[in-house]
Amino acid sequence: MIIVMKPRAKQESIDRIKSIIEEKGLFAHISAGHEVTIIGVVGDKAKLMDQNLAIYEEVDKIVDVTESYKLANKKFHPDPTIVNVGNVTIGGDTMVIMSGPCAVESRQQLLATAHAIKKAGAHILRGGAYKPRTSPYAFQGLEEEGLSYMKEARDETGLPVVCEVTSLDAIESAVKYVDMLQIGARNMQNFYLLKEAGKTGLPVLLKRGLSATIDEWLNAAEYIIAAGNPNVVLCERGIRTFETATRNTLDISSVPVIKAKSHLPIIVDPSHATGVRAYVKSLSMAAVAAGADGLMIETHPDPSIALSDGPQSLSFDQFEELTEELRPLVSIMGKRL
Amino acid sequence: MIIVMKPRAKQESIDRIKSIIEEKGLFAHISAGHEVTIIGVVGDKAKLMDQNLAIYEEVDKIVDVTESYKLANKKFHPDPTIVNVGNVTIGGDTMVIMSGPCAVESRQQLLATAHAIKKAGAHILRGGAYKPRTSPYAFQGLEEEGLSYMKEARDETGLPVVCEVTSLDAIESAVKYVDMLQIGARNMQNFYLLKEAGKTGLPVLLKRGLSATIDEWLNAAEYIIAAGNPNVVLCERGIRTFETATRNTLDISSVPVIKAKSHLPIIVDPSHATGVRAYVKSLSMAAVAAGADGLMIETHPDPSIALSDGPQSLSFDQFEELTEELRPLVSIMGKRL
Amino acid sequence: MIIVMKPRAKQESIDRIKSIIEEKGLFAHISAGHEVTIIGVVGDKAKLMDQNLAIYEEVDKIVDVTESYKLANKKFHPDPTIVNVGNVTIGGDTMVIMSGPCAVESRQQLLATAHAIKKAGAHILRGGAYKPRTSPYAFQGLEEEGLSYMKEARDETGLPVVCEVTSLDAIESAVKYVDMLQIGARNMQNFYLLKEAGKTGLPVLLKRGLSATIDEWLNAAEYIIAAGNPNVVLCERGIRTFETATRNTLDISSVPVIKAKSHLPIIVDPSHATGVRAYVKSLSMAAVAAGADGLMIETHPDPSIALSDGPQSLSFDQFEELTEELRPLVSIMGKRL
Amino acid sequence: MIIVMKPRAKQESIDRIKSIIEEKGLFAHISAGHEVTIIGVVGDKAKLMDQNLAIYEEVDKIVDVTESYKLANKKFHPDPTIVNVGNVTIGGDTMVIMSGPCAVESRQQLLATAHAIKKAGAHILRGGAYKPRTSPYAFQGLEEEGLSYMKEARDETGLPVVCEVTSLDAIESAVKYVDMLQIGARNMQNFYLLKEAGKTGLPVLLKRGLSATIDEWLNAAEYIIAAGNPNVVLCERGIRTFETATRNTLDISSVPVIKAKSHLPIIVDPSHATGVRAYVKSLSMAAVAAGADGLMIETHPDPSIALSDGPQSLSFDQFEELTEELRPLVSIMGKRL
Repeated sequence: MIIVMKPRAKQESIDRIKSIIEEKGLFAHISAGHEVTIIGVVGDKAKLMDQNLAIYEEVDKIVDVTESYKLANKKFHPDPTIVNVGNVTIGGDTMVIMSGPCAVESRQQLLATAHAIKKAGAHILRGGAYKPRTSPYAFQGLEEEGLSYMKEARDETGLPVVCEVTSLDAIESAVKYVDMLQIGARNMQNFYLLKEAGKTGLPVLLKRGLSATIDEWLNAAEYIIAAGNPNVVLCERGIRTFETATRNTLDISSVPVIKAKSHLPIIVDPSHATGVRAYVKSLSMAAVAAGADGLMIETHPDPSIALSDGPQSLSFDQFEELTEELRPLVSIMGKRL
Repeated sequence: MIIVMKPRAKQESIDRIKSIIEEKGLFAHISAGHEVTIIGVVGDKAKLMDQNLAIYEEVDKIVDVTESYKLANKKFHPDPTIVNVGNVTIGGDTMVIMSGPCAVESRQQLLATAHAIKKAGAHILRGGAYKPRTSPYAFQGLEEEGLSYMKEARDETGLPVVCEVTSLDAIESAVKYVDMLQIGARNMQNFYLLKEAGKTGLPVLLKRGLSATIDEWLNAAEYIIAAGNPNVVLCERGIRTFETATRNTLDISSVPVIKAKSHLPIIVDPSHATGVRAYVKSLSMAAVAAGADGLMIETHPDPSIALSDGPQSLSFDQFEELTEELRPLVSIMGKRL
Repeated sequence: MIIVMKPRAKQESIDRIKSIIEEKGLFAHISAGHEVTIIGVVGDKAKLMDQNLAIYEEVDKIVDVTESYKLANKKFHPDPTIVNVGNVTIGGDTMVIMSGPCAVESRQQLLATAHAIKKAGAHILRGGAYKPRTSPYAFQGLEEEGLSYMKEARDETGLPVVCEVTSLDAIESAVKYVDMLQIGARNMQNFYLLKEAGKTGLPVLLKRGLSATIDEWLNAAEYIIAAGNPNVVLCERGIRTFETATRNTLDISSVPVIKAKSHLPIIVDPSHATGVRAYVKSLSMAAVAAGADGLMIETHPDPSIALSDGPQSLSFDQFEELTEELRPLVSIMGKRL
Repeated sequence: MIIVMKPRAKQESIDRIKSIIEEKGLFAHISAGHEVTIIGVVGDKAKLMDQNLAIYEEVDKIVDVTESYKLANKKFHPDPTIVNVGNVTIGGDTMVIMSGPCAVESRQQLLATAHAIKKAGAHILRGGAYKPRTSPYAFQGLEEEGLSYMKEARDETGLPVVCEVTSLDAIESAVKYVDMLQIGARNMQNFYLLKEAGKTGLPVLLKRGLSATIDEWLNAAEYIIAAGNPNVVLCERGIRTFETATRNTLDISSVPVIKAKSHLPIIVDPSHATGVRAYVKSLSMAAVAAGADGLMIETHPDPSIALSDGPQSLSFDQFEELTEELRPLVSIMGKRL
């Protein structure tokens, strides 16, 4: 931590900061420049957590030099994390494809989808049973009934299943049926939920919040890991910007940035990122080429009547076409599909 | 709802949309322009909820002409809502000042603050017992112990109290101690929490999400009202933008926009909006002048050692100075403090 | 300037940075922390401008501790700047109201407007003769003919006039007719134009760019002042965010932030910030209460047929009503209208 | 164009709008719904340009159903445009690589770079002679001297050259030396410059503005084409968002969106998009996989002493490594490098 003083700060202001730091058992390193004096804090900055140095007289700003996340930080854990979901490994040499409907609507819809995506080469079945919807009047999900269909689909196809949870109730139900919990974008900073998901020990797919910085995203992962659960997979799904041609703006840079800052695997969801079916293929290709560990792609037996997110869902034929087109690219990237 | 077809769409594409609309018992009004044909849907669009018209052939886009929120919509409820919190009314002719520490840290800190803000003219005591913090290593709140101090402060001063809730557990504890529940910015689209808060019947202070549009915010209010609880007060607390000179960007326009679109009261939180104590007074003045129904302002006996948000908290003297400066402005606005 | 090294950086990496700094005649102050080493640079950092320290081995990041703008910086010029435009002073105790049509459309339209706004209490007439429009097919302005009407309006009413310039040609024409040049939001980083506007010596109204940070805005002002022209007035007119209820998002916080960082006057343009006539009054009130030095408000004899920005323009009656409502507030703020 | 009336609008309000439309020789198609009435305008909406229907009584909103750009619109020009720059074609089956320094610093620097990038397989040399810099104290470019080195580099290597222009003066000089003009992000809505660049007839590389929507970008292209110059190449270089881990946020979705909406070629500049050298390779791969027609990548003989944008520039070795890694991907995409 560095404290930058205002230009020509009085010596007594500098001394006051210095003494606060030293009282906490830390060391203050003073650099008196020709315009400003900066004070470097040497030692464990957690000891200063109850001091708001920013509001002392003549303090201009505080600059943090270390990240607040530790367990999710590549600096301290340089080896890539590999997460096992059933018999599938994420973060290794498989380009993991998760697919399925936005919302589980019926047993028939889900089973048909599970078989179709398996045939096309997908590894994990996704499906929402608890749907966070902007309007209270939109379809809210089948809840536990939906989870039971997920389990049935897994039993029939062998594909592990992932399902979003939105409350402690949902977690308590989900652990009985699914292989991986998903924390959705709107709950990325629902810290209560993160801790509860962490306690289950199940692998967690953590979607990036609509307006979350990469730092905040890794801090959210830190909540899960700190609860004793290192099995976290990140999922970039677009951030909110001024552009309206797509529903969100896929931050493709997050893939190399996460690879530089963290050891956690990262997958990309081009369906939610764009909200437009026609753009899903281009962005899937881009994500793989950028170095992602996998993709999450929405599919539906008949997107024209999907109860949620139909406009961005692929039909089974379109999904199969996509996986075919991905194969040579995945191969170039040194992975297999 | 309007369906805009692509230029020179074939008649059969237009007919397909028309017949889907009519099959649902609605009426399709065709306008054939020289470039594009548009189809107006007459009737209850909820009947089309399970149809994704956007993905039919030659459909260019779908335009919604009505808002999805109804109960929070001024078009259908033109009279302003007045919310009672204990003996305080929000949305009437009182400019309601809520104040208190970001986090309840101790009995002594809270009681001292309660007395100080009451003396300066505040109407409601705020204080966080469940703190959503970016890092798991930051102070997370005193939880139920904090709530009990809130109740004690109310009993001593007569000020109603408001406290953020972040889970069903927190709600179940809070209803025993507080007069108003707060849903924080990070949980604005935690729809599960909104429904549970709605069920309590207690007035709810609903903060705007960091990246929530005004439409999404009113839809979040709709969740609470639809759960049977019309006592919702909105709180603008800044949105996330590219600007870093302030912690968030106070969207002051939200005050007149909410007044035009909804009947719910709206207050402004300049402390969280800027994150900088020195800007709180200017923005409090601006909020009152823009037509807000109240303010929420953080105060602390000694901001330099606050466990949360110290840099934006006012000391008691600064808070008293602020309320004094607000008085003539409040009077001009036809309200009283 | 502070160089933050990566955790456990090798001594030779640290020494390399140290020697580069010292070769340039500066002093490197080393702070070896328990996790990271930081290097403070003491001396004139301009000497390091041709060195990209960020890309040396084991450098984590570079932190600037001083602003790059000097002439626009309150730290070095603590007294507020007062800008004279004809007989009007901006930044003193007058709340300066600039008003007029978005675009000069005809002699008659402009003269009628000039008389009406003068009667209502405005101080400066605005009007665009060179219109930067998103589409090439929209009305582009009357150019020099428009400027001549501006001059005529000034001669008739005594109101100084301000006009946007968009090219060197426009500047060369404008200096013959107007009292103040305006640099519009889209040209805020048209550095060529800033330098040329600076050379004229005329006062310059510098609008904030749609996505400009406050730091970039002050750097743009620095271009004008560095060209020898200290007469710069800043104008906040809304920034681009995700919110679509208003055309832009008025960053009301920019008023106190500019007052804290710079000595330049700042006015607010609520018309462009919202794009909606109904919100102009609330935001005008907010701007005055936040401490702005003036307002710029669009007016038109008949907004329903304005060639540009009609939806946000006030009629003469509405404008007069606005100035009447502003008077008691301006008085409270210690200014006069 | 569609006019949406407020709920339960009076018949006379609807009639007023209808008669305005019909007076202009257009046809008004009324759709009276159970909540709202919508009015479709049939005919050439340009005839309504001088009418601001939005501000008439009981009008709720105006919805445009057609884009304002025509010449850049794929709907009216379905075949892809191919732009010739010297002997290089952009938009065909070559993945065009533009490379070179951010700023031309010296004859030697530029010639060395030109030879190195040619050897590695680049097709076009880029180099800035007029540099738009945030601070007036940063290096502003060699201007005409820089252009002459560009020409010399072309004569020596045969590579066509592209250079940014920031004023009419710069255009007048540049046409004597370069093969393609670049309009930079900060000047994307400098409409005067767009028109002047259009008049030269030289191919124009149009970078996207920091906060420009895709619609505004295509309208900017429309300015150039409407000036008689169809040779426009778009360049995505990142937009401004709240994320600070990268300098800008590369909007990779813009590639498929532009391909869907326009016939113009699009290239991607990962160097400016991220500002970080380490991320350039991943994003180059992503851009090619997303379907871009080319890349613009900054290179420098010694990035550690580059006068501009060193941290994002590749060394010659890094650039050669990049082109080698791109080859198999380019081949999969059906193009050649």
